[in-house]
Amino acid sequence: MRAIVIAVGSEMLEMNRQDTNTLYITQKLMEKGLLVDMKIIIGDDMQNLAWLVKQACKRTQLVVLTGGLGPTEDDITREAVATALKKELEFREEMVAQIEERFRKRGLEMPEINTRQAFIIKGSEVIPNPRGTAPGLFIDDEQCRVLLLPGPPAEMKPMFDSVLEEKISPLCNYHIYTRSFKFGGVTESGVDSLIAELYTKYKNPKTTILSSPGIIEVHLLGRSRKAMDETRILTDELAEKIKERMKDALITEKDISFEQYIVEELKTRNLTLSVAESCTGGGLGNRITNVPGSSDVFLGGVIAYSNQLKMKLLGVNENTLIKHGAVSKETAKEMANGVRQLTGANIGVAVTGIAGPGGATAKKPKGLVFMHLSAEDMDMGIYQIFPGAREMVKTRTVNYSLNLIREYLWTLDKA
Amino acid sequence: MRAIVIAVGSEMLEMNRQDTNTLYITQKLMEKGLLVDMKIIIGDDMQNLAWLVKQACKRTQLVVLTGGLGPTEDDITREAVATALKKELEFREEMVAQIEERFRKRGLEMPEINTRQAFIIKGSEVIPNPRGTAPGLFIDDEQCRVLLLPGPPAEMKPMFDSVLEEKISPLCNYHIYTRSFKFGGVTESGVDSLIAELYTKYKNPKTTILSSPGIIEVHLLGRSRKAMDETRILTDELAEKIKERMKDALITEKDISFEQYIVEELKTRNLTLSVAESCTGGGLGNRITNVPGSSDVFLGGVIAYSNQLKMKLLGVNENTLIKHGAVSKETAKEMANGVRQLTGANIGVAVTGIAGPGGATAKKPKGLVFMHLSAEDMDMGIYQIFPGAREMVKTRTVNYSLNLIREYLWTLDKA
Repeated sequence: MRAIVIAVGSEMLEMNRQDTNTLYITQKLMEKGLLVDMKIIIGDDMQNLAWLVKQACKRTQLVVLTGGLGPTEDDITREAVATALKKELEFREEMVAQIEERFRKRGLEMPEINTRQAFIIKGSEVIPNPRGTAPGLFIDDEQCRVLLLPGPPAEMKPMFDSVLEEKISPLCNYHIYTRSFKFGGVTESGVDSLIAELYTKYKNPKTTILSSPGIIEVHLLGRSRKAMDETRILTDELAEKIKERMKDALITEKDISFEQYIVEELKTRNLTLSVAESCTGGGLGNRITNVPGSSDVFLGGVIAYSNQLKMKLLGVNENTLIKHGAVSKETAKEMANGVRQLTGANIGVAVTGIAGPGGATAKKPKGLVFMHLSAEDMDMGIYQIFPGAREMVKTRTVNYSLNLIREYLWTLDKA
Repeated sequence: MRAIVIAVGSEMLEMNRQDTNTLYITQKLMEKGLLVDMKIIIGDDMQNLAWLVKQACKRTQLVVLTGGLGPTEDDITREAVATALKKELEFREEMVAQIEERFRKRGLEMPEINTRQAFIIKGSEVIPNPRGTAPGLFIDDEQCRVLLLPGPPAEMKPMFDSVLEEKISPLCNYHIYTRSFKFGGVTESGVDSLIAELYTKYKNPKTTILSSPGIIEVHLLGRSRKAMDETRILTDELAEKIKERMKDALITEKDISFEQYIVEELKTRNLTLSVAESCTGGGLGNRITNVPGSSDVFLGGVIAYSNQLKMKLLGVNENTLIKHGAVSKETAKEMANGVRQLTGANIGVAVTGIAGPGGATAKKPKGLVFMHLSAEDMDMGIYQIFPGAREMVKTRTVNYSLNLIREYLWTLDKA
C-alpha cells in the first residue's frame, strides 16, 4: 500500500459528525501522485490506536495522523505512535517556552497541563504550528514514515502543506494530469450514455462521473510512472472529444461553482438579474448571493409563495391562475416578465412547481417544475419532472434555472 | 474492540466524495448500545481488503462492510472476505433466478455479468435486498461476525435495519439512554461556560456540545452495562438542570430542524410569516420552505438586494437609507414593517447586513447584520457581528432570524 490517513477522535464517531481532514489530505496526496489506499476514523483509545498504527506501518509507506495532540488525557496520539514504533517519549524543555510564548501573546498564562505538549517521540522532527499550541511530528522510520498533525483544520492544513514538498513528494511514484468538466441540464445516465463509448477506449486517463442534483461533473485522471508527455496527450485527446460531444451542456472547465460562473458571465456582459421564486422559496437568490460581489449583477426579486403575491407583486393575471394553475408554463412566464419589469433588471427568472411531498394532482405530479427566463428581446421556458424529496427537487430546480440563464447567455453569443 | 465499520469503494477516496453509510451504521449501532471503535474507507483492492478484514476480525466482535457487492470486476468484497476468513465461494443457482426476476419486473433481461452476484461465501446467511440486485451476507464465524451490505444507501439502510434486532442486538453490551437540546441565539463557548459546572459533575451521562452556525446542540448519553434505572435518573437529572439554566435559549428537545419547529409553532398559533431579505438573498425563505407544508404559514416576501427595491417594494424611506445606511437598525425595521404590510402577513422579518468579504466600512465591520421582526402589536430588533466567511455569515443570520421568531412567539405565550 501507499498511504493510510488516520483521523483520531471519538467525537468523529458520534452523531452527525463528519471528519474533513482525511478528505483534504487524500486530495492533496492524490494531486501529488501518491494514492491513499485507506482512510480511518478511530476513537481516543490508546491501545486500539497503537495496534492500528503498528499494523498500518507494516503495510504502507506513509501514515498520516490528525488529532489527539492536545494537552488533555484524551489526547493519546503521541503515546500510541510511540508504542507502535517502540520508541520513547522525551521531554523538550525548549518547547515549553514556545508554548508559553503563544499563550503570552494572547495575554494568557499557560495552564500547567499544556506542558504535556512538549513531549515528543524520540527521533522525530518537530513541525511548527503557527496557529495553535500542538506541534506536529514527523518520523522517518525504517518501516515507514509517520506524520502527526493536530486536528483543527485551520492548524492542520498549513502544517501539512509545509511538509508536503520536502517530506512526501519523494514518496510519490506517479505523475498526475487532470482535466474536468461541469455539465448542466443533463442527468448522470444521460452524460454516461453519450460519452461511455469515448472514455471506455482509454484505460489511462481514468474517467469518473460525479453527480449532484442538477450538475454532472466529469473528471479525467491521467497517471504515469515515467514522464507525463504521453499521458498528457491522451488525457487532452479524450478531454477534447468529450468537450465536443457535450458542448451544448458544458458549463465550465474551471473549478468554480455554477453560481459563480453565472455571476462572472453576467458581469462580463453588464447584465442584471432578478428572480421570482415560488417552489424554491428563495433558494435561487440564496445560491446566487453566495457569490462574493454578486450585488453587482443581482438586484433581488420576489418570493411569491402565495398566489396573492404572484398577482399583487408580479402582476400575474388572475385568469391565468384560474385557467392554467399556479404551476404552469403561463404563470411562470408572467412571473418572469413581472419581476423583470418590477425590478428593472435585464433578466427575470421565475420558477413555480410542486416540491412535494404534498400538492400533486392527477395532472401535475410531484416534482413538476416550470422555469422561465424573460429578457427584453426574448423569452425561454423549460419544465422538468424532478425525482427525489422536497429539498432535492428545490436544489435541482435552482441548478436547472442557472442552466437556463447559461443557455440564454449563449444565445446572445451566437447572435 | 466492539465494532468496525468498513466502506468499500475507490470512488469514496476521490475528490470531494464523502461516504455516508458508515455514519448511518455507526449511529444505529450506538443507539443499540454497541460502540464503533473505528470506521474505515478503503479502495477496491482485493488484497488490501482481505488483509484489513483479517486484521479486523482478530480484534473485534463485529465487522460491517458496505459496497463492492455489484456484478463488475471492481466488486471485490465477497472474494476479499472469503479470503480473509479462509472460506470458499459457492454458486447458488436459486439466486440467479431471483436476480433474473428483478430484471424482468423492470422489463429488462439480466446481463450475463450479474450471475456473479449469485456467488456467496460458504456458510453465510443471505440477506434479501428488496431494492436492488446485490444480496447481503451475514457470517457468524468463531472469530467474529461479519455483515456484508451493498453500497447504495437506499438499498443498504433497510437491509441493515432488518438484521439489527436479530443479529446485532445480542452483541450489545450496553443500555443507552439519551437526552438532547437545541439552543438558539447563543455561541458554543457561551453554552459551555453556563453548563460546564453542571455536566462536569457527571461522568455518566457523557455530555457533548455540537456547534453549527447559529444553533448549538447539547447531547447527553447515558450508558449502563446493567439495568438502566440509575443511569436514566442521572441523565434526566442533568438534563433538567441544563434545561433550567438554559431555558431562555431552548429551541426544542425534539429531533426536528429549527425551521420545522418554527413552522409548527406558527401553525399552532394560526400566524402567517413573510420575509424581507437583503444580505441573505433568499436564504431565510429557502430554509423555511424546506419544511413540507410550510405554505400554510409562509406567504413569501421580497429579496431586496438593491436599495432601489428596498424603497420601491418595501417602502423604506430614502432619508433612512441616506442617514443611517442600508445596513442599520432603522432600515431593518422599515423593511420588516414594509414586508408585513405588503404581504398582509401577521409577521414580517427583515435582515440587512454585510456578508463580506467586501462592503465593510470603518464603522460597519464585515459580519454586521441587523435583524428585525414586525408584528401588528410589537417590534423586535437585534444585531450581531458574525464571524466567518460569507456563507457562514448568511447561515448564522438565518438561524438568528429564526431565533427572533421563536423569541417573539414566546412573548405571546407569556402575555
